[in-house]
Amino acid sequence: MNLLIKDVTLVPMDGNRDVIENTNIYIQGDRIVHIGDIDENRKVDRVIDGKGKVAMPGLVNAHTHLAMSLLRNYADDLPLQEWLTEKIWPIEAKLTSEDVYWGSLLSMVEMIQSGTTTFCDMYFFMEEVGRGMEEAGIRGVLTRGIIEEKGLEKEKIEYTRKLHEDWNGRANGRIKVMVAPHAPYTCSPSYLKELLDLAVELNSEIHIHLSETKKEVEDSFKEHGKSPIKHVYDLGLFKQPTVAAHCVHVDDEDMNILKGNKVTVVYNPSSNLKLASGFTPVDKMLKKGINVALGTDGPSSNNNLNMFEEIHLASIVNKAVNMEATSVTAKDALKMATINGARGLNWDNEIGSIQVNKKADIILIDMDKPHLYPLHNVISALAYSAQGSDVDTVIIDGNIVMEKREIKTLDVERIKYQVQKATKSLINR
Amino acid sequence: MNLLIKDVTLVPMDGNRDVIENTNIYIQGDRIVHIGDIDENRKVDRVIDGKGKVAMPGLVNAHTHLAMSLLRNYADDLPLQEWLTEKIWPIEAKLTSEDVYWGSLLSMVEMIQSGTTTFCDMYFFMEEVGRGMEEAGIRGVLTRGIIEEKGLEKEKIEYTRKLHEDWNGRANGRIKVMVAPHAPYTCSPSYLKELLDLAVELNSEIHIHLSETKKEVEDSFKEHGKSPIKHVYDLGLFKQPTVAAHCVHVDDEDMNILKGNKVTVVYNPSSNLKLASGFTPVDKMLKKGINVALGTDGPSSNNNLNMFEEIHLASIVNKAVNMEATSVTAKDALKMATINGARGLNWDNEIGSIQVNKKADIILIDMDKPHLYPLHNVISALAYSAQGSDVDTVIIDGNIVMEKREIKTLDVERIKYQVQKATKSLINR
Repeated sequence: MNLLIKDVTLVPMDGNRDVIENTNIYIQGDRIVHIGDIDENRKVDRVIDGKGKVAMPGLVNAHTHLAMSLLRNYADDLPLQEWLTEKIWPIEAKLTSEDVYWGSLLSMVEMIQSGTTTFCDMYFFMEEVGRGMEEAGIRGVLTRGIIEEKGLEKEKIEYTRKLHEDWNGRANGRIKVMVAPHAPYTCSPSYLKELLDLAVELNSEIHIHLSETKKEVEDSFKEHGKSPIKHVYDLGLFKQPTVAAHCVHVDDEDMNILKGNKVTVVYNPSSNLKLASGFTPVDKMLKKGINVALGTDGPSSNNNLNMFEEIHLASIVNKAVNMEATSVTAKDALKMATINGARGLNWDNEIGSIQVNKKADIILIDMDKPHLYPLHNVISALAYSAQGSDVDTVIIDGNIVMEKREIKTLDVERIKYQVQKATKSLINR
Repeated sequence: MNLLIKDVTLVPMDGNRDVIENTNIYIQGDRIVHIGDIDENRKVDRVIDGKGKVAMPGLVNAHTHLAMSLLRNYADDLPLQEWLTEKIWPIEAKLTSEDVYWGSLLSMVEMIQSGTTTFCDMYFFMEEVGRGMEEAGIRGVLTRGIIEEKGLEKEKIEYTRKLHEDWNGRANGRIKVMVAPHAPYTCSPSYLKELLDLAVELNSEIHIHLSETKKEVEDSFKEHGKSPIKHVYDLGLFKQPTVAAHCVHVDDEDMNILKGNKVTVVYNPSSNLKLASGFTPVDKMLKKGINVALGTDGPSSNNNLNMFEEIHLASIVNKAVNMEATSVTAKDALKMATINGARGLNWDNEIGSIQVNKKADIILIDMDKPHLYPLHNVISALAYSAQGSDVDTVIIDGNIVMEKREIKTLDVERIKYQVQKATKSLINR
């Protein structure tokens, strides 16, 4: 289908102009083909009125665990280790593939409703997430989080190889598969090397948790004599482009390693704050030229998947951390949520900005809301005032996935019903 | 009018039960008269279906500058002093009473739409704010922020005396007036004493900014040999119940003073973070038994008036500050936004919780949203997952002010139009 978004305020995130007033975006099939004046010669099937709206690239949630929506608000106000080991892991062990399917779909609904068009998920039963993605029409990365378990080492490697074979590039290229060692504290050095070999073999990127808590870093120094980042770097992991979730507790050496390799830090402000993991030195990272993306982490440590909240936090929290109100500007935060995320997922040739020849992953924000009046500065308004619920229309891969807040691809009522059912059964299992 | 909210999940914030499932709330005129079983003998004019909804006390935004909505996103990513003196104060000097009227109304719309039913405003042309309040049907405190100006000292005192005479208790008691010295760094000790005398004479509470920035505290030590809090305490200010905005930079002596007097700290997380003012030691304050309320501050240092964001921040930011995920729980944050706020405004005999004989200031949250599924814990869901846009219905003083997100009392389109007009004229003035 050929779409025209007419008379819209464009925030392209293309590294050139911040805001282009009153322009037009032509979409042919899955791609953006023209931005600017009306071109009468182009065939258009549908015109979307962009008046009073901002068009910006769909948001990239670069680290999440989607099916954990089933455990949303299940265990809160607990420290990370206790939360994980005493609450989350025991109940996760009971999850079925069906649970993961419905939980992931619920999360896709929530993400679409708040403007996320691409995600990077780490969980298990990933073929269920893929199945949901095909239906939802969303873009994303499937990664099976691998925790080393005696006797299951080969099986887990085989699982990811098969996942890659079956799903990488599927759904018109909307689905990508990466290799995901869960963390250096859940995989031995030799196993990490095997997983690296797999990534090299598949020519795939790596998704991993690194340096999330102070304890993790201290333990790594005790066990390996170095930080988690130095440890995996010395093992050669960063030969492959890497999506490194968290990196909260990092020193200068760590940051030099991150900068010197194709590693993207995924900053998860809500989760890091809520689990009391600490404050990621985002301003320092950005100044060093490290690529910092944004994520929500799983919806049970956040407890939602609203990237507008993360954008807001990314900017304001770091100002206070640095005692400098000029740190991490509105624009920095928007970049983190769009083009930096795309770069992190090694997908910036296709998404992350609104430019001719890129995929049409575009969200329209309804600016006609009292809390967005008056509109002195569009970039500030998006970062500081806008809400996830201001997202009016979502286009992914050239398809209208949500319009006037109605999701076109999924039966939301059925998903809510199935989630209730799955949750009840899970708790009583 | 007599209202019945039927089959609702109640979060009363009454210090007893956290959540009461499937109950009924009877409202007669402006008051709650019965909570519990259906009482067939009560005359009811309107039944509101509470199924799938949570009823909680209307939120109390205990510190704001409403008309600053006109300057929303006007100047961002700047340090507080530069932001105030170079950007905000010069343009504020040009504001007319008409501007303040429309800007305040815009803010009232935003507050109602995100669940705030009571506010404490500090600005000027306060009779315009009062006029807007009468129309909006909202509850709140009018305070004229007094900055000492040569030759205008008496005039400003007279203004507040007249404001009190004209507006205190008006609109069925929805409007209250307090005395508001802007800050100890903008009022001399002798002027602060005169303002205290005024508060004693009017039997009114005091609203003031205290210890917002590190610089302010350092300057106070240089000038008075003590902290701003100790300084105003020694002047006798805390004889009157005091609403103290910020208190970011406080030491143990300050906290003992706050605790030992009828002083409420208004924590403004978004504003303190965004202006890089710092981290208020909220957990320590709560543990000491200091009454901590929540505020948004003005919409140009936030940049919205969404108390659900402040609730979320109040909890998660303080967990990271203390490196303890058990700090400032979901329930603590909800208390800060309701009953603590009411206590701060010396209004907890009437509002801040849902109890028989209190005023009917009630908001209904629509829990039938994907990001609120599944509902493992209502308190957590409200603090961590809910959005301002989930507020469905707002009742203030027994009147339905918003229903199904439609504001009943104000012409929102007209307000947006007038705000655009006022802003354009202001910028070109």
